Amino acid sequence: MGFDFKQAVNSGLPAASQPWDGFPEFNFVGGNNDADSLPIDSIADACDRVLRREGKTLATYSLESGPQGYLPLREYLVSKLKKYSGIDCSASDILLTTGSLQGIDLINEALLKPGDCVIVEESNYGGVLSRLRRLDVEMIAIPVDQHGMSTDKLGETLQSLRQQGRKPAYLYSIPTVHNPTGTILTGERRQQLLDLATEYDVPVFEDECYADLVWSGERPAALYGMDTTSRVVHIGTFSKTIAPALRVGYIVAPWSLLGQLLSLKTDAGSGALEQMLLAEYCQEHFDTHLSKLNINLKAKLDTLTDAIDREFGTSAEYTVPPGGIFLWVKLPQGVDTSRLADVALKEGVALNPGSEWSLQSDSKRHLRLCFANPDADTINTGIAKLASICHREFGVPLTGSNKARS
Amino acid sequence: MGFDFKQAVNSGLPAASQPWDGFPEFNFVGGNNDADSLPIDSIADACDRVLRREGKTLATYSLESGPQGYLPLREYLVSKLKKYSGIDCSASDILLTTGSLQGIDLINEALLKPGDCVIVEESNYGGVLSRLRRLDVEMIAIPVDQHGMSTDKLGETLQSLRQQGRKPAYLYSIPTVHNPTGTILTGERRQQLLDLATEYDVPVFEDECYADLVWSGERPAALYGMDTTSRVVHIGTFSKTIAPALRVGYIVAPWSLLGQLLSLKTDAGSGALEQMLLAEYCQEHFDTHLSKLNINLKAKLDTLTDAIDREFGTSAEYTVPPGGIFLWVKLPQGVDTSRLADVALKEGVALNPGSEWSLQSDSKRHLRLCFANPDADTINTGIAKLASICHREFGVPLTGSNKARS
Repeated sequence: MGFDFKQAVNSGLPAASQPWDGFPEFNFVGGNNDADSLPIDSIADACDRVLRREGKTLATYSLESGPQGYLPLREYLVSKLKKYSGIDCSASDILLTTGSLQGIDLINEALLKPGDCVIVEESNYGGVLSRLRRLDVEMIAIPVDQHGMSTDKLGETLQSLRQQGRKPAYLYSIPTVHNPTGTILTGERRQQLLDLATEYDVPVFEDECYADLVWSGERPAALYGMDTTSRVVHIGTFSKTIAPALRVGYIVAPWSLLGQLLSLKTDAGSGALEQMLLAEYCQEHFDTHLSKLNINLKAKLDTLTDAIDREFGTSAEYTVPPGGIFLWVKLPQGVDTSRLADVALKEGVALNPGSEWSLQSDSKRHLRLCFANPDADTINTGIAKLASICHREFGVPLTGSNKARS
Repeated sequence: MGFDFKQAVNSGLPAASQPWDGFPEFNFVGGNNDADSLPIDSIADACDRVLRREGKTLATYSLESGPQGYLPLREYLVSKLKKYSGIDCSASDILLTTGSLQGIDLINEALLKPGDCVIVEESNYGGVLSRLRRLDVEMIAIPVDQHGMSTDKLGETLQSLRQQGRKPAYLYSIPTVHNPTGTILTGERRQQLLDLATEYDVPVFEDECYADLVWSGERPAALYGMDTTSRVVHIGTFSKTIAPALRVGYIVAPWSLLGQLLSLKTDAGSGALEQMLLAEYCQEHFDTHLSKLNINLKAKLDTLTDAIDREFGTSAEYTVPPGGIFLWVKLPQGVDTSRLADVALKEGVALNPGSEWSLQSDSKRHLRLCFANPDADTINTGIAKLASICHREFGVPLTGSNKARS
């Protein structure tokens, strides 16, 4: 008689996964990137060089660098963070992680307990919302407009919480190329946010995963760089600028937090070869690669917005983002993007429904489209298909490709 | 005024880490491996080949393989597990993980809750003992002799638990090259263990991380391969056979458990480049590499036992292991290896004290020495130094290098 693992597993776990059956034909979900922009020859050259020079050190956990991760990559990050993010730090302030998701998990493990509340942007990264729900942490949502999180609303919320005798465990923000809206928090609002955090003695959790993907290259300094009160913990990643399947992210934090995060990181180190490759490649090539990548991503965004305008007309509302890999789209009243996502997936079109990416009351009218991975033909055909499915299911859009829909 | 993260972190967390200040000169801790055995040219060749052929797929989370990990590596594992472990499985039964430690964490998250009890070998992997303590799970220890876990004692324990109305959440075993004792559970005892697990309806968690490191190449089939009741979950790794800094492990399990583990694995995939490299390298080179590695490890073990015999004489008791990278040593009554480890570390000699690696009542007389990483000179000098420190602190050994100690 066989053992029944389904009866043996804990109750309350997320539903078990189904076996994977391949990518959908028109894939607008997740944070996949542009394969054609991946400079594979330079990456292979860098990998070969560093492996032949230092590969023997792979015989030791954490190489010769200790548990914070490959020192040359941390040293590269010191220069990159200074140049791009206005952050002045040293290699000892950085902990390399297995993707920025591990950073999020470590920070949550250190700072959150069930029943806590945290402040978050109203539309948000689905992976953070799902984690906070599983941790039984209350999310207090602040609206986002074209200048980022509303600091007026943030001030009101902090005051109201103080009146209730409550203090948020942290304030989480994606200030630069916000996920999913793509907005950039202005410099003025950054200062207001930090002033409020200081006034109410709340730590700030800054997620800068998309910050390098700004078409103009211009962006305010990171909150971590502006802060003078050691209250910011900052995370970033190479997933969006080099390749998501390389799982390398990082945490920058004062040692009073970083030392605790390090003791919670009981994984015997993050993947070392990927760290070695990134250090070797980025020192020489990151800046030129990023410029090219941003040109290619901008072109894909243009393709997507053209396709949406053509197929959805005025039924789709969006603000063109100044960077990133996502478009956040609002459809007419009556559309339920969770149902749309289910139906569309069966016909090969995958999208992220707003209910998983937002705490807004009208979240189910929204959807998130990643434009970085599909090529132009796939974007055009996929959006036409999506508009047709949406019309069939919800009666909108009424026209597409300048023709009335029957 | 600065923010005080030390006040903000949760209570009850492991103590914060201190900054790393380099490896000790005589390093016998952890599971570091033999750098000279690492065939870095063939590894670099394999890496270069797979990167130039398939590197563009790194632009997509989980490549083209889905969340269970790089398909060619899972396919290689199917053939390796059949050949080395007597396991008949398919690629869909395998989940690639970020080291086998992630496998342990996922399995624990699925199967354990505070207050549960589990059955473990009395001497054990420190990383498992510390995890179970943090999870507030009671460990019920079964003695290990030269044939592995005592199945007589296991039967008595299961019966006694049944009389108390208790059922272990799992039975954890390292049957092949046990950590730290190096013993191999005999084929007969394996069958007894499985029969008992079936009789008492307990799932079995088999950790085969060291199993390839058997000098003779001869070993019984894995429990997973012998089991006919779908009650075994099996983990393994490439850390001990290729390189520990490549964080690639795997879980083999029936889908009724694997699908649940997969939904708990919310890390957006494990490092893909390291999976690609291992698949490309191992298909061609694993068998010949393993033969050479085992010859080199055996030579280092001989160096270590010679050094211990010379420096500790009859003060050190051990059983020569048939494989692996560790020697488990027992010192005379009165020695406290936790204190010895503290004192020795200050003088550049690092070892794992028995109290972290065993639930035995005399655990503090034991110590674990990893012999794979230090070279012969380091082993000889380090053991001489250790014996001298031990004599100074505890009065034993009385002689060393055939001279009486003063």
